[in-house]
Amino acid sequence: MLRIGVIGGHLCDDTLAGVARRVGELVAWEGAILVCGGLGGVMEAAAVGARDAGGVVVGILPGDDVRTANPGITIPIPTGLGEARNVLVVKASDAVIAIAGGWGTMSEAALCLKMGVPLILLKSDLTNLPVPEAETPEEAVVWALDQARTRGEPQ
Amino acid sequence: MLRIGVIGGHLCDDTLAGVARRVGELVAWEGAILVCGGLGGVMEAAAVGARDAGGVVVGILPGDDVRTANPGITIPIPTGLGEARNVLVVKASDAVIAIAGGWGTMSEAALCLKMGVPLILLKSDLTNLPVPEAETPEEAVVWALDQARTRGEPQ
Amino acid sequence: MLRIGVIGGHLCDDTLAGVARRVGELVAWEGAILVCGGLGGVMEAAAVGARDAGGVVVGILPGDDVRTANPGITIPIPTGLGEARNVLVVKASDAVIAIAGGWGTMSEAALCLKMGVPLILLKSDLTNLPVPEAETPEEAVVWALDQARTRGEPQ
Amino acid sequence: MLRIGVIGGHLCDDTLAGVARRVGELVAWEGAILVCGGLGGVMEAAAVGARDAGGVVVGILPGDDVRTANPGITIPIPTGLGEARNVLVVKASDAVIAIAGGWGTMSEAALCLKMGVPLILLKSDLTNLPVPEAETPEEAVVWALDQARTRGEPQ
Repeated sequence: MLRIGVIGGHLCDDTLAGVARRVGELVAWEGAILVCGGLGGVMEAAAVGARDAGGVVVGILPGDDVRTANPGITIPIPTGLGEARNVLVVKASDAVIAIAGGWGTMSEAALCLKMGVPLILLKSDLTNLPVPEAETPEEAVVWALDQARTRGEPQ
Repeated sequence: MLRIGVIGGHLCDDTLAGVARRVGELVAWEGAILVCGGLGGVMEAAAVGARDAGGVVVGILPGDDVRTANPGITIPIPTGLGEARNVLVVKASDAVIAIAGGWGTMSEAALCLKMGVPLILLKSDLTNLPVPEAETPEEAVVWALDQARTRGEPQ
Repeated sequence: MLRIGVIGGHLCDDTLAGVARRVGELVAWEGAILVCGGLGGVMEAAAVGARDAGGVVVGILPGDDVRTANPGITIPIPTGLGEARNVLVVKASDAVIAIAGGWGTMSEAALCLKMGVPLILLKSDLTNLPVPEAETPEEAVVWALDQARTRGEPQ
Repeated sequence: MLRIGVIGGHLCDDTLAGVARRVGELVAWEGAILVCGGLGGVMEAAAVGARDAGGVVVGILPGDDVRTANPGITIPIPTGLGEARNVLVVKASDAVIAIAGGWGTMSEAALCLKMGVPLILLKSDLTNLPVPEAETPEEAVVWALDQARTRGEPQ
């Protein structure tokens, strides 16, 4: 199965939450695994969207306690690694969708560029990144899945 | 869902492989997620057993390349953390079953004891650990699931 | 002792190397520890500058092999953590100086902003970061040491 | 410089503290760097012994806060990695001395055996490990330094 990462802030307004939820829903409908940092905001909205669509949702948590996972997470991975867990979110993804996001998200986006993980921005104010921007959740998910397929998968 | 970790060597003979496969099968039949280090030997046998029984199998890999995951892994988590990924295998498990195993397994077993993660030994030569030993895969899986439930789960 | 991190690319031209070497020299003269990622380019030039000035130079390496440390490193810390070691470079620093740098450096710079670690840019093309830019090594080191002191130190 | 790791519990009685302090003192007198987990008990006694003898003492901390480092630490490395930092203590050492110790120490000792890092026990109740046991701090430090030299060093 393809693994699509969703990165974004742990706080977000209803509009962004709706966008993230739709991204999660589409990822699940396409039969891909959604990977995120497992906490609130964009991560939670995308996770809940994917779970409600019957998807598998991996939450790579910064702490040790699975109870910190948002309700959309079906597979919590407590790491106790703190911020270092962000690297794992990127590495565990075949392609990444960044929704809005602050400096934590910028750090992960830069890691995608460094490590060659395909990245697309959606409603994001991360500026000056040499990556495509999507207008809609549909566009972002289609692009991410296409890139993920191109990178190849273990059978 | 409960998460049961299986730890053991990356090399094992057919007898141990059969034991590990049966453990994976039982974990999947019980509707629990199997967590392991994602490589060969005991990890692979347990993973294939769980996958063939329709289970979800998380492989927390030491390297960056998902293609190093054994064929039983349904959710590869490449970490690039090397040996430090062993800590994640323990943290991501509600309870752990150790099958045979060498020093890497002993290191993870000691982490279980330090972190209070329930651990049971099966066909293991890890000596002098103050933990129960199971005679059969059935006994190990029943005990691990019971301990995992007792530790409590999110929602 | 104060700990000043220097981040930047693993490749750099002679001009940048000269700048980095001077930064390392000044950090050592001020009696601070220089922290870096331990490899080549900007890291090596800064490390050699500090070592030649009699300083202590910590190199937090991505791999397991101390022999990958550049010749300026006096205290190699092999981590085997891969890219996740970048987080440690930031956490181990009271303040950070970014010299030039690509996406790896941007990832570390964004981490500084997320984690509240004082950051100053020197000859850096990292754009749109809300942090000061120094014209000279002297200016960068004076600012970084001042910020590091302000953050307080264990005695 | 050679790097000697000292592992042991974060609590210890005066007798063990005296042994650990002497180990630290000897490591510093030999001009080697002492590496430890940076917290209390055996780690603190060894660190203070080395610092008082003018040595360099690296403390690889589980948390983010340098103020958690014991007073003997001259170079704190906050990692925020939790238990995963134990792996770094082993990897950063050319040879390791285990003093007493519980399950956390056993986990690190097993890692030494897995990773081929020379390990010697001193006043340790870690049983059934195929490694030498020293009667005195002198014997432990001489053995560890000899093993560390044999493993070779980058110049």
